[in-house]
Amino acid sequence: MIEQLDRIRTAARKLSAAPSDAKNEVLRSAARALQARAPEILAANAVDLKALEATPAFIDRLTLNNERIAQMAQSLSAVAALPDPVGEIAESRTLPNGLQVRRVRSPLGVIFMIFEARPNVAIEAFSLGFKSGNAMILRGGSESRHTTSVLYSILRDALGTAYQEALWGITDPDRGVVDFLLKQDQHIDVVVPRGGPSLIDHVTSNSKIPVIKNDRGLCHVYVHEDADLAMAKRIVVNAKTQRPGVCNSMETLLVHASVAAAFLPELHRELEAHSVTWYGCRRTLTLLGRKPRVEPATESSWDTEYLDYKINCRIVDSLDGALEHIARHGSRHSESIVTSSVAAARRFQGEVDAAVAYWNASTRFTDGFELGLGAELGISTQKLHVRGPVGLRELTSLRWLIDGNGQTRN
Amino acid sequence: MIEQLDRIRTAARKLSAAPSDAKNEVLRSAARALQARAPEILAANAVDLKALEATPAFIDRLTLNNERIAQMAQSLSAVAALPDPVGEIAESRTLPNGLQVRRVRSPLGVIFMIFEARPNVAIEAFSLGFKSGNAMILRGGSESRHTTSVLYSILRDALGTAYQEALWGITDPDRGVVDFLLKQDQHIDVVVPRGGPSLIDHVTSNSKIPVIKNDRGLCHVYVHEDADLAMAKRIVVNAKTQRPGVCNSMETLLVHASVAAAFLPELHRELEAHSVTWYGCRRTLTLLGRKPRVEPATESSWDTEYLDYKINCRIVDSLDGALEHIARHGSRHSESIVTSSVAAARRFQGEVDAAVAYWNASTRFTDGFELGLGAELGISTQKLHVRGPVGLRELTSLRWLIDGNGQTRN
Repeated sequence: MIEQLDRIRTAARKLSAAPSDAKNEVLRSAARALQARAPEILAANAVDLKALEATPAFIDRLTLNNERIAQMAQSLSAVAALPDPVGEIAESRTLPNGLQVRRVRSPLGVIFMIFEARPNVAIEAFSLGFKSGNAMILRGGSESRHTTSVLYSILRDALGTAYQEALWGITDPDRGVVDFLLKQDQHIDVVVPRGGPSLIDHVTSNSKIPVIKNDRGLCHVYVHEDADLAMAKRIVVNAKTQRPGVCNSMETLLVHASVAAAFLPELHRELEAHSVTWYGCRRTLTLLGRKPRVEPATESSWDTEYLDYKINCRIVDSLDGALEHIARHGSRHSESIVTSSVAAARRFQGEVDAAVAYWNASTRFTDGFELGLGAELGISTQKLHVRGPVGLRELTSLRWLIDGNGQTRN
Repeated sequence: MIEQLDRIRTAARKLSAAPSDAKNEVLRSAARALQARAPEILAANAVDLKALEATPAFIDRLTLNNERIAQMAQSLSAVAALPDPVGEIAESRTLPNGLQVRRVRSPLGVIFMIFEARPNVAIEAFSLGFKSGNAMILRGGSESRHTTSVLYSILRDALGTAYQEALWGITDPDRGVVDFLLKQDQHIDVVVPRGGPSLIDHVTSNSKIPVIKNDRGLCHVYVHEDADLAMAKRIVVNAKTQRPGVCNSMETLLVHASVAAAFLPELHRELEAHSVTWYGCRRTLTLLGRKPRVEPATESSWDTEYLDYKINCRIVDSLDGALEHIARHGSRHSESIVTSSVAAARRFQGEVDAAVAYWNASTRFTDGFELGLGAELGISTQKLHVRGPVGLRELTSLRWLIDGNGQTRN
């Protein structure tokens, strides 16, 4: 395994200086091969699915068909068309001693990505990592291993002899392999875990390697006392119901006490169309207690990411109350305030500890495509290196390149 | 302890929105108090030194006197005078749907810094962390605990009631406190260890919290076949002898075979003025074997950070040979090539895996002051978040602030 790590490290060095054209051609060639070898992929996928006992949602994420293969091919071509972040000059100046200093965007090196049994994630992770000049170790959920095995073979073919060792796809279901790799900080530069809380916890607890964490989202919308209530209703309905199973959907609604009576019954009526269940604070229950699907919140409700048609609702007495609630229960992902006051908006955005802080908009926009990154590997909820969507540029960091003519230090 | 963490987290939220003037006034007031309470500091320092059995270098780093206290006060004033990175807008644009997007530099939150028994580091860490809007947990080597205890008291007085909880100075020598804190990823955002390899290894192995690592420097200078040998000599002598005990000094010299005979004897003569010991490869020994202080290198020599008047020397046959040696033995810190060829320089800088890649300059410039950051907390040798000097800006990250007028996602 150490030999394999040596090979991928050498490949990463070569890849770090690869021209954009060569990288894009690999991605386009992989896209063509994915289509050409669709029958082989589908056969492997059938083997994975045959052995599987799982929830319908899990099975759905693992299932491929021709349309989904076409989408994967399309995503490869789309990444090929994005600008290459490697070599971007972030800063350039000449020091008084004549040294010419540039800070240049460079690949992270070797990235180890651990993800769920979702074949499309293997393709997305490879395309973003490779385009940004990184060698990739990929390890998907073992339930998808026949499918990913074919995908890795296709990708390695596309890499050709020049870059073949820049991908190491792991299909060995033994978790000991993962645990061994998490200690190899001399060979691997970054670990990106994507999956449930137990995976994230396992990786952050056991990795010696720096981590980009894609953790849960417990997002809030706070409706301030001077909010346009019609706008607030649209935003809350969108943040909760447009796609409740994703991390940027809203879990908890906070409402200023002075508008609760005018806002909540009307919002309840609207959310009934989606059969949304409410978990309310005491004051919410006083207002909505006789309506359907309204239950008392427990202390754990405020920390629960439902990813479902369920909502927490708490009435607060001030912007401070909202900020304190979010400080205690938020996940540093996305938070929104609905208000007519610039001052309230700026204070909320300034003090709320979130990767993305919205004023008068839905939390659902926290997404690499929506925010113009062109693609995303996930949403980071840590504060080191990257907050929010992880795109191509976020898979690089800045190095210093310094040109002199013999300068020495006194 | 959890209560203390709750308090510092709340303080961090308040501090994140603190005006620059208020922060600068705290730093200047701390500088004045440091001078005013110098006798108290020196008395505590005497207690620490009395109990101490250690090397002269260790004792020197722990020893304070009036001049060193004045330097610490001066460093606080200098940080007060630096521009505040918090609130800097890195990017600003309007999306097609009308959302106004800004990426704004924001504090990391709560930083836990673990450092050696060096009182001045407590002051530097506090000043940089606080100025960049972060609440700080400081834990210095236990041998300095009486001294740091007085320093923490001075700093907390300077913080006043408004920001008092933004500093938690730990003087408890029990390492169990450190190990407990390394697991508190819900309360602490970043850990910055500074010290020897065993500390760094302990922290990276046990922390659930993201780390900014200040690891060792095993820096190389490579003298290419077309180098200006007079320039090469100046650079090597400076990189090795100007201050050998620091991480950006050179440990290993790589020389192209075609210039070794012209370069090495002359360099040896020059380094004799500093009684430098050589550990040479077989070919180096053939050239220099009869000269004083020249010994054969062993396999472990190439991985040894001497921090002393000692040098490894290997003769290589090509730029590729130099790059391969550095890939195997380098520490991703600082590497330099001496060459007259732009192409060789660009290839070296592009492929060498280093935070700072030099062309025709000494590695000794890898330093926050030298590179214009105004100050530094250390030199990062990891690739996530920051490579090279860690200044004020590197103690922040970018958040997204997004203003809308009711936008929802389709």
